[in-house]
Amino acid sequence: MRVLGIDCGSERTGYGVIESDGVEHRMVAAGVIRTSARQAFERRLAEIAAALRQLIGEHRPEQAAVEGVFYSANVKTALKLAHVRGVALLAVAEAEIGLAEYSPLEVKTSVVGYGRAEKGQVQIMVRNLLRLAEPIDSEDACDALAVAICHATREATNRRTGMRSQNRSDGKVGL
Amino acid sequence: MRVLGIDCGSERTGYGVIESDGVEHRMVAAGVIRTSARQAFERRLAEIAAALRQLIGEHRPEQAAVEGVFYSANVKTALKLAHVRGVALLAVAEAEIGLAEYSPLEVKTSVVGYGRAEKGQVQIMVRNLLRLAEPIDSEDACDALAVAICHATREATNRRTGMRSQNRSDGKVGL
Repeated sequence: MRVLGIDCGSERTGYGVIESDGVEHRMVAAGVIRTSARQAFERRLAEIAAALRQLIGEHRPEQAAVEGVFYSANVKTALKLAHVRGVALLAVAEAEIGLAEYSPLEVKTSVVGYGRAEKGQVQIMVRNLLRLAEPIDSEDACDALAVAICHATREATNRRTGMRSQNRSDGKVGL
Repeated sequence: MRVLGIDCGSERTGYGVIESDGVEHRMVAAGVIRTSARQAFERRLAEIAAALRQLIGEHRPEQAAVEGVFYSANVKTALKLAHVRGVALLAVAEAEIGLAEYSPLEVKTSVVGYGRAEKGQVQIMVRNLLRLAEPIDSEDACDALAVAICHATREATNRRTGMRSQNRSDGKVGL
């Protein structure tokens, strides 16, 4: 299956596309959508939407995975992030791709085997799992690949065991 | 000038289109975009986006006005609202319409003349200002018309005095 992972942020939105059977994962694309803070916020949203639509059109993922929204210490940051996340979910819905949401704990447990893993450990495991010669230099792209790997692994397990994913979007948006 | 006011909400998003010279206002359209809570959240976002695009295409507003995001007692509600707001701002940006943001205080001061006005007072004043025979039955549509009237009034004053609006979107998304 081909999975698009998205790591939303108003300044940098990471993305990662993987091809996976749930055990072996191959990186198809990864990177960061950057927008300038000097632009009006709605223009930045438009750029993020355009970039995601282009990525989806180019790589044709069958499913998308994002992290849920969680209460941040900084409410302003959380609210800004939620605007970007709304735009990302819209791009996924309009492309009629299935969406799943995972908590950071679920992503880390899936990728590293330990829910409180450090960023560095996630980066090492993502690199290992994708058998990349070079480390991924962007933390945002790495987080996007991690949520894609998490979803591919979970989805394959669910398919083998005949269970329906608990992480399919059900309107709760991780709240 | 023709102004689209939007009052975002995940269940009900109010809208109001007015034609105004800043003193006399005429209602062109008003209503509520309703989405079902039984649908996946991203599907609801897609419905809101589609409805806003259709409204913009039909009524061709030159400018759009929304309320800023404010810290709600309920963080979940605020985060959900911010997703919808992201989608609304995107629809405005993609239509290349100017966007302005006002605080509830600014809207009430403009429409009622008193920043702490009650909902009922806003409804009465919106009805009077638009010279409507019937009251507006939806609070969401009424709030959308109120922010549109606020913007039209402010914009006309700014034009007369040669001032640039302080409420034009500048990337701060009302935070």
